[in-house]
Amino acid sequence: MHAPGDVRVEERENPAIIEPTDAIVRLSATCICGSDLWPWRGADRVNHSPMGHEYVGVVEEVGSAVTDVRPGQFVIGSFFASDNTCEICRAGYQSRCVHAVMMGTIGTQAELVRVPHADGTLVATPDLPPPDLIPSLLAASDVLGTGWFAAVAAEAGPGRTVAVVGDGAVGLLGVLAARQLGAERIIAMSRHTDRQALALEFGATDIVEERGDAGVARIKELTDGLGAHSVIEAVGTQESMMQALRSTRPGGHVGYVGVSHGVELPGGELFFSTVHLHGGPAPVRRFLPELIQLIWDRKINPGRVFDLTLPLEQAAEGYRAMDERRATKVLLTL
Amino acid sequence: MHAPGDVRVEERENPAIIEPTDAIVRLSATCICGSDLWPWRGADRVNHSPMGHEYVGVVEEVGSAVTDVRPGQFVIGSFFASDNTCEICRAGYQSRCVHAVMMGTIGTQAELVRVPHADGTLVATPDLPPPDLIPSLLAASDVLGTGWFAAVAAEAGPGRTVAVVGDGAVGLLGVLAARQLGAERIIAMSRHTDRQALALEFGATDIVEERGDAGVARIKELTDGLGAHSVIEAVGTQESMMQALRSTRPGGHVGYVGVSHGVELPGGELFFSTVHLHGGPAPVRRFLPELIQLIWDRKINPGRVFDLTLPLEQAAEGYRAMDERRATKVLLTL
Repeated sequence: MHAPGDVRVEERENPAIIEPTDAIVRLSATCICGSDLWPWRGADRVNHSPMGHEYVGVVEEVGSAVTDVRPGQFVIGSFFASDNTCEICRAGYQSRCVHAVMMGTIGTQAELVRVPHADGTLVATPDLPPPDLIPSLLAASDVLGTGWFAAVAAEAGPGRTVAVVGDGAVGLLGVLAARQLGAERIIAMSRHTDRQALALEFGATDIVEERGDAGVARIKELTDGLGAHSVIEAVGTQESMMQALRSTRPGGHVGYVGVSHGVELPGGELFFSTVHLHGGPAPVRRFLPELIQLIWDRKINPGRVFDLTLPLEQAAEGYRAMDERRATKVLLTL
Repeated sequence: MHAPGDVRVEERENPAIIEPTDAIVRLSATCICGSDLWPWRGADRVNHSPMGHEYVGVVEEVGSAVTDVRPGQFVIGSFFASDNTCEICRAGYQSRCVHAVMMGTIGTQAELVRVPHADGTLVATPDLPPPDLIPSLLAASDVLGTGWFAAVAAEAGPGRTVAVVGDGAVGLLGVLAARQLGAERIIAMSRHTDRQALALEFGATDIVEERGDAGVARIKELTDGLGAHSVIEAVGTQESMMQALRSTRPGGHVGYVGVSHGVELPGGELFFSTVHLHGGPAPVRRFLPELIQLIWDRKINPGRVFDLTLPLEQAAEGYRAMDERRATKVLLTL
């Protein structure tokens, strides 16, 4: 991305092993994230930056210290490379690994990618996947793992009513995660008919079209005036955070994963809300083995969030389609 | 309190049963809360308001619908009256009961108090207590229950390092609670030697005198650069909340109970901190049976936080002593 709104696909030098713990992966597919739209729209600084942080592909080469990952394996990694051995990783917060590397700084909208901490970051599939599984495996790299973390952070589960604020890929996959985690009732907040349809397919039981205070009032109506037990926030704006906070019952849980932009939480309202608040950049690595297995066994189909597929060369058109909401999520083929 | 800084003890009409679920309690002791200093200092509105929300005493009369509480019993209640039967109460959030009544609006710095929802609010001791247990039982009404909730919200427990921001009665009793909950290491942040001594008596293993960024740096030094697993916030200011947030490791837990005044939490920093945040007005009722038993069995001595005892008539001097930090917490006798 040369500047906001200016994405170009250019030839760059092939990445090479730098650290002995690195691997080089030849990508099978990559994609554009909702968070890639922040710099596209000028909300984050960008200046000739490599883009992308989601990836699946085949290991081409590994450094001398890599022992678990082998060339020829099909692998998925998270958008944070992590050693998976430090105390923070072992507690399940690999996105905050003491040696974390943001894959977005490396850029995975590319043919070849260097992945640091290969053993700690990459998870191999049981075998080379059939092509129709690749979109779902790619989704596990971020949007599925992030939606899953949000649902876990919101303590979605049996007997609980879950509300989901945000109908992008992460919100929709938060619906899928809440369903898998056994939630009793799942309320998707969406005003787009195509996204409502996918939410219902993923397991939503109710759709609320209202947003802001009206949306909060609808959630209260649906929950005996109390609010939802669990609320997933998957946008990152002041409005969406307040909508999530106010939709949650006292003692309930907000799981928030929308990358925060310009949010200021009013301390007094937060205090008297008595909710649990947890979120941030999802430790996707924690969930990858389980998610890959669910996909491999065809129990979930998160790849359904991709509604536009383009060759990598047409990445700029992909950004435009997502920015203009012509697409929920764009898969880029190689 | 007629106005900020102006507390007077005056004759008022005796309270009477209004609702059939009410009880009238003749107080054995009451006290002044750190949060009573907010209006005293002009930070909260006050205008001829009855004051106080902590109380222990003997039931004098009960309404026709009261079945569990009997005249003659010695009882303790929380600063929120609660029915203890609604869905929110049953989930353990009695401070947010759908029928909650703030005892502070009734005012318990008095000889007689009307307690709404008597069956749901009041917990009786096994017998009339010996006089030396009364301060500890009174502490259970708020500061002990609040410190305990903060420690539970911060998930203090075995193997965990707990940092406590705030050395008032609630912070000190957060130390006691963390010790009872089995925390491995408890770092009290205090620069007052008398409060440091009490923190050590309550189970603190380390004292940090620095505050703000320097305090955060010390906590990091003491925790391999990672931050504490659990942080108790017991002040309620912007500085204390940021100190708590920044002292917590990724994936760790902040339990915050300082009544929030002017706090604005920066969303971006909160997001990338990846902490759990939980707190608010403590559901003390959840913990009262357990806390009363611990006091009754003389396993804890939370009444130690009272370092000045005055007759009720001298309440104004009690406020001044706490405001000027000549006392941590003032007990008022009747």
